[in-house]
Amino acid sequence: MKTYTIGIDFGTLSARAVLIDTASGDELASCVYKYPHAVMDRSLPCGTVSLPPDWALQHPGDYLEALEHTVPEVVRQSGVDSGQIIGIGTDFTGCTVLPVKADRTPLCFLPEFEKNPHAYVKLWKHHAAQDKASRLNGIAEERGEPWLRNYGGKISSEWNIPKLWQVLDEAPEVYAAMDRWVEAADWIVWRLSGVETRNACSAGYKAIYSKSAGFPANDFFKALDPRFDGVIERFFALEITPPGTKVGGVTPEMAKKLGVQPGTAVAAGILDAHVCAPAVGIGGPGTMLAVMGTSACHMLMGTEELQVPGICGVVADGILPGFYGYEAGQCCVGDHFAWFVDNCAPSAYAWEAKARKVSLHTVLREKAEELRPGESGLIALDWWNGNRSILVDADLTGLLIGMTLRTKPEEIYRALIEATAYGAREIIENYRAYGVSVDAFVASGGISQKDPMTMQIYADVLNLPIQIAGSENGPAYGSAIFAAVAAGKEAGGYDDIFSAARVLGKRKDTVYRPNPENAAVYDELYADYKILHDHFGRGGNDVMKRLKKLKAGV
Amino acid sequence: MKTYTIGIDFGTLSARAVLIDTASGDELASCVYKYPHAVMDRSLPCGTVSLPPDWALQHPGDYLEALEHTVPEVVRQSGVDSGQIIGIGTDFTGCTVLPVKADRTPLCFLPEFEKNPHAYVKLWKHHAAQDKASRLNGIAEERGEPWLRNYGGKISSEWNIPKLWQVLDEAPEVYAAMDRWVEAADWIVWRLSGVETRNACSAGYKAIYSKSAGFPANDFFKALDPRFDGVIERFFALEITPPGTKVGGVTPEMAKKLGVQPGTAVAAGILDAHVCAPAVGIGGPGTMLAVMGTSACHMLMGTEELQVPGICGVVADGILPGFYGYEAGQCCVGDHFAWFVDNCAPSAYAWEAKARKVSLHTVLREKAEELRPGESGLIALDWWNGNRSILVDADLTGLLIGMTLRTKPEEIYRALIEATAYGAREIIENYRAYGVSVDAFVASGGISQKDPMTMQIYADVLNLPIQIAGSENGPAYGSAIFAAVAAGKEAGGYDDIFSAARVLGKRKDTVYRPNPENAAVYDELYADYKILHDHFGRGGNDVMKRLKKLKAGV
Repeated sequence: MKTYTIGIDFGTLSARAVLIDTASGDELASCVYKYPHAVMDRSLPCGTVSLPPDWALQHPGDYLEALEHTVPEVVRQSGVDSGQIIGIGTDFTGCTVLPVKADRTPLCFLPEFEKNPHAYVKLWKHHAAQDKASRLNGIAEERGEPWLRNYGGKISSEWNIPKLWQVLDEAPEVYAAMDRWVEAADWIVWRLSGVETRNACSAGYKAIYSKSAGFPANDFFKALDPRFDGVIERFFALEITPPGTKVGGVTPEMAKKLGVQPGTAVAAGILDAHVCAPAVGIGGPGTMLAVMGTSACHMLMGTEELQVPGICGVVADGILPGFYGYEAGQCCVGDHFAWFVDNCAPSAYAWEAKARKVSLHTVLREKAEELRPGESGLIALDWWNGNRSILVDADLTGLLIGMTLRTKPEEIYRALIEATAYGAREIIENYRAYGVSVDAFVASGGISQKDPMTMQIYADVLNLPIQIAGSENGPAYGSAIFAAVAAGKEAGGYDDIFSAARVLGKRKDTVYRPNPENAAVYDELYADYKILHDHFGRGGNDVMKRLKKLKAGV
Repeated sequence: MKTYTIGIDFGTLSARAVLIDTASGDELASCVYKYPHAVMDRSLPCGTVSLPPDWALQHPGDYLEALEHTVPEVVRQSGVDSGQIIGIGTDFTGCTVLPVKADRTPLCFLPEFEKNPHAYVKLWKHHAAQDKASRLNGIAEERGEPWLRNYGGKISSEWNIPKLWQVLDEAPEVYAAMDRWVEAADWIVWRLSGVETRNACSAGYKAIYSKSAGFPANDFFKALDPRFDGVIERFFALEITPPGTKVGGVTPEMAKKLGVQPGTAVAAGILDAHVCAPAVGIGGPGTMLAVMGTSACHMLMGTEELQVPGICGVVADGILPGFYGYEAGQCCVGDHFAWFVDNCAPSAYAWEAKARKVSLHTVLREKAEELRPGESGLIALDWWNGNRSILVDADLTGLLIGMTLRTKPEEIYRALIEATAYGAREIIENYRAYGVSVDAFVASGGISQKDPMTMQIYADVLNLPIQIAGSENGPAYGSAIFAAVAAGKEAGGYDDIFSAARVLGKRKDTVYRPNPENAAVYDELYADYKILHDHFGRGGNDVMKRLKKLKAGV
């Protein structure tokens, strides 16, 4: 009998489901559902409560709606019998986190909290806890907390504890009323299966959990704020579940809503970037996976827990069970090029795009493609949105150098693309310098699928052949693979993620191979990028910070 | 009896004449004549000889046509009697230089030379003698030539000797056939008056002449090229005439063509920037005059010959007789903003400009005007066309720092304007550091007349009140003043340029006064500009040069 699984990717603006054949990996149906409330960054749904700058909330009701819309839809589209669907897997953005009652009810569902912003989901890009993150880092460093080095030396304001601290400090009534503080990734699994658990990926990368050392000690939390006393027991002390684990079966109530059988295996949650590794067939160390979209996430497996400065984190079982999962990232990749197109593409090019009925990106890309490496005479630092890895500094800003009166827009556009490739190379060189090997590079995400010029530039800059993810449903496809593992071999799935990835991992036939001449020129340019990177990023000249401060003061 | 003079400004693309009342300075008539051949940078008039990159030639016939068109026209327009016109003064771009026979005939007028590019006028912006300039500077430095320090340590490729050397090397037949190598400024005076002379301004700023030491020695020229032996006697050994000197009277032949009386006083030539000093009433030290257009020229008088690094030159009698005239400059001011508008203004703004029937500059300027100092978080280095003062390095390029995903086009536009103001401040601070005082600032040229936002930014950055030239005919008005001095008091003119400048110098009523709050913010920004300026301009990081070299190699 043929068997199938469903994977659901909960993204920033929508959820996407895919239904796959567990033997062949064929994607029989897919479906996207846009969240009705999208990202709430100006006001709450009631319309009478506005939100301060840097806030980004979501409505947990949207996730349930997405689930109840997409799953029945892919079952219907595919025409398969629900009895043949052996598992459901989900992945989520993160750290995307919400306060709930012991019965899984989000606080914002309760009338007494519907006008309290802190009762809603804090989306990954909620940046209003920066002061908490900064204080946390200072205290952790002072106390010599050993886990700090596992996160490149800094905890991001996007992560779990700073966001929780913001609730404690700004809305103690919410802090008092909630029974759990849960990642949306775990909450959706809880809703599906009725089982409460913590996935190893979110716990490790976003909540400072280590397989060997657990969460930070109660003392540390008390040093942050005495009211944090007992926080671990209260909110975090649950079983930590590695990716691919079967958490439980779909509850009868949920099975009815989704059109699947009660008891269908539900896989542990996982973050939306990390879920992509088996989707491209990565089953161990040496191959870097880059998920390239508006920003980029770089994942890599290792057999040892090495402390690499400037990475986002190293987490046991964080990506694949049995391996240390390393994560690094770039804050701004596609966003970088989009900024240029939106703000600096001249009207002549806009006219050309209109006349030819193509996008402005296409016009710029065609012109940029004709340039040879080094021809523009430009270098940029890719810090328009700060630097995540390896400097971990949100206060860094962009730099462009080498302009003359003959510099053309497509030269700047290409320089911005090259800058992100240098940034990726910097991450790889840093891994290598600290003993984590990178021998191969696989790209996933929108840019990898749609932008051959950028991928060739990456191949030339990294001097590595680049392979491309085979599924256009990226994370959802990865979730469907983990669902097949959760279901297990007996049910028609797989024993473990490694055998599943070997069969179901997909890469396109296209390989971007480095051109040796281009690679030699890019070696020279990268050397200069590196000098600028270290000068402006490591204290040689803190002008970027001074300018930011001055700007904030105006 | 009322008396009048005529001033003619020979610019890059056209000549402009003005006829003024010598008592009141009223401008009774003005007229512009575009050169038929404009700038020849692709081919000679015959159409069969093309020109290499970096060449820029002019046709001397255009200057004569301009003279014969504009002078009768302003006389006609004004309705004054030619007997009341007591003097004619001219100013010219420079170093704009041509080979002529002893009878003043340009070599390019002779049939045997009309297809030889070296027989034409080399315009100031002819940049094809850069290799000659570099070799000249190397040899001068090696020999410890004392005059080098009077030119900030470097002779520009735009100047006289590199251009002459290019003729000698590339067209020895032209070098052999010519009797004189003459600045267009002196040639036009020679055509008017029949008297051959060398004006102190061009000789000093462009041909390495010093009142105290003369031209460089024959030995130096021989060290450049043995074929230069005797070059001084052959081409340069003529009387050096300070500005305002009466060279002679208009020849009968020329008087007939121009509609003036034979014998009308003809003033010595002068460069088009330097002629502006008396036009704005500058009669001595302490007040800087900035001529601000596509590029900028900064002039200042001193009572001592101080060696200031990085300036264009210090020349006795170069601007006003009896003073040391200091000149510095910026390669790219208006060009800088125009580059941005042409290449990086988004189509939305172009639409707005079209809908409102205003220029794209206007749209950007209005948006930029609403920004406060420091609000953009940006700093630029104004080196899109290299740096003339105080680094004297054509191989420097642009830099922009501080961009985020929220950076708007008008913020970049404003940052480019601010960068040129920091560049001007750098020139002023350098003068002050070497003992030349700058207490006041007067601006002339297109930007000073048309762009109040830029002028206010300059006032705030320089922390000096800025006054604006009163005549819209700038240099031509200055030439008319020198004509009145050449005519002399007895004829209805003036005894000297100082008394003339006191009466005729004009400034507008508008004064741009520094806003103390803005000035304080700009002090901080300038401090950071200075750090970047010195780091990238003085060898801290020669990335700009490496990028240029790499680009040239592609």
